[in-house]
Amino acid sequence: MDDLLDQLRTSIGADHVLTEDADVAAYVVDWTGTHAGRALAVVRPGSTEEVAAVVAACAGAGVAVVPQGGNTGLVGGGVPDASGSQVVLSLGRMRRVREVDPVAGTVTVDAGVVLADVQAAAEKVDRLFPMSLGSEGSCTIGGNLSTNAGGTAVLRYGMTRELVLGLEVVLPDGRVWDGLRGLRKDNTGYDLTQLFVGAEGTLGVITGAVLRLFPATPRHATAWVAVPSVDAAVSLLGLAQQHAGVHLSTFEIANRQAIDLVLAHLPGASDPLGEPSDWYVLVELAGSASDTGLDETLESLLGEAVEAGTAVDAAIAGSPAQRSALWALREGISEVQKVEGATLKHDVTLPIARLAEWATTIGPRLQEVCPGVRLVTYGHVGDGNLHYNLNAPLADDRSDDDALRAAAADLTAAIYDSVAREAGSISAEHGLGRTKVVAAASYKSDVEVDLMRALKHALDPAGLMNPGVLVPPTQ
Amino acid sequence: MDDLLDQLRTSIGADHVLTEDADVAAYVVDWTGTHAGRALAVVRPGSTEEVAAVVAACAGAGVAVVPQGGNTGLVGGGVPDASGSQVVLSLGRMRRVREVDPVAGTVTVDAGVVLADVQAAAEKVDRLFPMSLGSEGSCTIGGNLSTNAGGTAVLRYGMTRELVLGLEVVLPDGRVWDGLRGLRKDNTGYDLTQLFVGAEGTLGVITGAVLRLFPATPRHATAWVAVPSVDAAVSLLGLAQQHAGVHLSTFEIANRQAIDLVLAHLPGASDPLGEPSDWYVLVELAGSASDTGLDETLESLLGEAVEAGTAVDAAIAGSPAQRSALWALREGISEVQKVEGATLKHDVTLPIARLAEWATTIGPRLQEVCPGVRLVTYGHVGDGNLHYNLNAPLADDRSDDDALRAAAADLTAAIYDSVAREAGSISAEHGLGRTKVVAAASYKSDVEVDLMRALKHALDPAGLMNPGVLVPPTQ
Repeated sequence: MDDLLDQLRTSIGADHVLTEDADVAAYVVDWTGTHAGRALAVVRPGSTEEVAAVVAACAGAGVAVVPQGGNTGLVGGGVPDASGSQVVLSLGRMRRVREVDPVAGTVTVDAGVVLADVQAAAEKVDRLFPMSLGSEGSCTIGGNLSTNAGGTAVLRYGMTRELVLGLEVVLPDGRVWDGLRGLRKDNTGYDLTQLFVGAEGTLGVITGAVLRLFPATPRHATAWVAVPSVDAAVSLLGLAQQHAGVHLSTFEIANRQAIDLVLAHLPGASDPLGEPSDWYVLVELAGSASDTGLDETLESLLGEAVEAGTAVDAAIAGSPAQRSALWALREGISEVQKVEGATLKHDVTLPIARLAEWATTIGPRLQEVCPGVRLVTYGHVGDGNLHYNLNAPLADDRSDDDALRAAAADLTAAIYDSVAREAGSISAEHGLGRTKVVAAASYKSDVEVDLMRALKHALDPAGLMNPGVLVPPTQ
Repeated sequence: MDDLLDQLRTSIGADHVLTEDADVAAYVVDWTGTHAGRALAVVRPGSTEEVAAVVAACAGAGVAVVPQGGNTGLVGGGVPDASGSQVVLSLGRMRRVREVDPVAGTVTVDAGVVLADVQAAAEKVDRLFPMSLGSEGSCTIGGNLSTNAGGTAVLRYGMTRELVLGLEVVLPDGRVWDGLRGLRKDNTGYDLTQLFVGAEGTLGVITGAVLRLFPATPRHATAWVAVPSVDAAVSLLGLAQQHAGVHLSTFEIANRQAIDLVLAHLPGASDPLGEPSDWYVLVELAGSASDTGLDETLESLLGEAVEAGTAVDAAIAGSPAQRSALWALREGISEVQKVEGATLKHDVTLPIARLAEWATTIGPRLQEVCPGVRLVTYGHVGDGNLHYNLNAPLADDRSDDDALRAAAADLTAAIYDSVAREAGSISAEHGLGRTKVVAAASYKSDVEVDLMRALKHALDPAGLMNPGVLVPPTQ
């Protein structure tokens, strides 16, 4: 392996081949702390050519490569296993916005550009790159593409998959596929771009992308709405779609337990409504400078909702600061959940017509499995997607982490089984990574697993690209 | 081969295995008349299980399968080769709309459902299935999916690829992949659906699909606009997007030559404007019942356009009948073009910023190659997509078909080379079929061709699914 390390140092510079424990530490543990591996080395190439040199060298030495972006993934898809034999390939130095074309409505970026920087590049030319996630200040666009990330703008603009026109990818043998096209229409073969999107680095390393831009939406109308139930939230969604049409850009849900955690642990957070409610919805309309009627539309739809009983109370943001405060309630959940002890996360989609009933029945089932387990539920109800997370029960006012850990497998199985029965998905937007790869396969048909394996084998016959992730092991 | 035919008759009934020349004739020649092949048999299975039985039987006998929908393709992708050894698998008997779910916004259909019937099923529940093509009365959704069809609604709703959520596919070995999911978010593996969309039947046979529905748009404002140039049309597009935003649903272009053909050969067609113009645009805004201001928006944008010189004159439809008459001018072109002798069709995309200059320079170049060649240009200018078609020059007032045929290869090469230099596409929405498979490969990198071959080999190692189509032969 010393030969490989020497070769890597020659290819990309010794400064960018990290092997000391202190240097490597931040790259081998994931954001959740669940996956802590070891690495032969962490390499930080600075260009597509250097990525290609790294991948070719590793292929030659038979060493596995783990591509990593901002390391904000939630399923252990970007960290090495425990063997210490894998090379982590960080795209963190590839941060160039290569080109912005407001007329064509495209931006071409390196894979290591932080999502917030892509948003900023679009804003600079009065355009919108709509993808928006809690981790947008540190996640990278390459990671977003490799995991087909979701977020709060999917309702209006679709998943990451729908925001990309072309890719540049270093293949498992070190060759570069230049598919950086900005055409909306190009029917000249298999859709290679969509094959690499969501592949979690198992078919190659995404090094660049052409992304779609949209007209800017400088106007917003935002409300924090107390709703009596998930069923009411789904009804409110229908009403909002009817009133606001394409202007409806956000429709997020959270339960009281989630908001209680935010109010307790997020500095400066306060409840915008007088009375507590079991469920809340964050609804936002967005439009162009000429869309001057958004506030009025929002007020009228909320008035109708209160009358119909699908909403109980609502606070409308009267200023950008108030808007930020409402968003902070929703976006703070993921971060504060970690403060109160052990958690267990799930990221599920249900067909929207089945969502309310599922949410009503699963809670009591989980209480049977783990009495006192705290349901911290939030997510993108407009997409049928809930982050159905659990906190450990309280024992003497302290988090009983052992109780949650002991019941974890049964809790997750209860959730996944019920989701599968309703033809939902056990990973809406987080991907499979190492965490869910086996579970996901168990809910798939043999035919589908075979297809996935056939694609993996076709592009990566030696199995050196992010092994153990996405594609289930044979047996 | 008699064994195979017997097996097919047993599997799907003797009535549905056609071998007589008279019965087979309509299935072995394509719509353009360019590709006339022969078939061992034409089989018409009535269910997914029967399709699976056919494909398995052919796989067992080592016989190639050519899937066929409405046989309206323009690149010979759905007809057999000249060998007489291939089996044509027509989906024409699979015409069931399996389920319509207006709440989820989905419709689940057999592959053989005619596009117009999908549209009608959506309309019945007050929803829109937006795909719209000239051949919508006879093309099938399976063919639309297999070719990733475009049409006049791509500007607002995207290609077929963007309208599908899940598929059912009979794989080359006869197994059925059930991927009929209606979820907007499902990150549990490679995107198999998008792999089969646009694969032109080379990886399997699409037998069913879950498609997305959208809110109905019962209101329309439609205008036929004379514009001085392609450059002006592109400027008008920007203006229309600015004024009408998401309501802009159609932005089509045609040159005078195209409209002259329609006026000469389409019964009842008349010129809605007094003075002839070199170029025309069909622009349409569409909205919901509550969008009452569309006419006003259209008038104001056209007023501004005339003032700016990007439009010369315009006729606004004042009734549904007038709207149909304007659409007929645009939709009639493809049909009437055949009346005046030999034609040569191209379906290209240019980056929108390069479109006008390309269109200005290519015409004179083609006149050098084939003096007098008639440029019949139309297409989806909002997507940068032109149908850059040619009619033979006139000699003594008659179509000099020999002159066009003699120059055909050079004309096409001139167009394709110039499109490739501008980073455009030589097949925007028609696919590759047999016609363009070799040309397309010649403009691709070796890496990209290798990737396509690797996918083909992974799913269809025996090479029996629509051989000769989409994937270039290995010498």
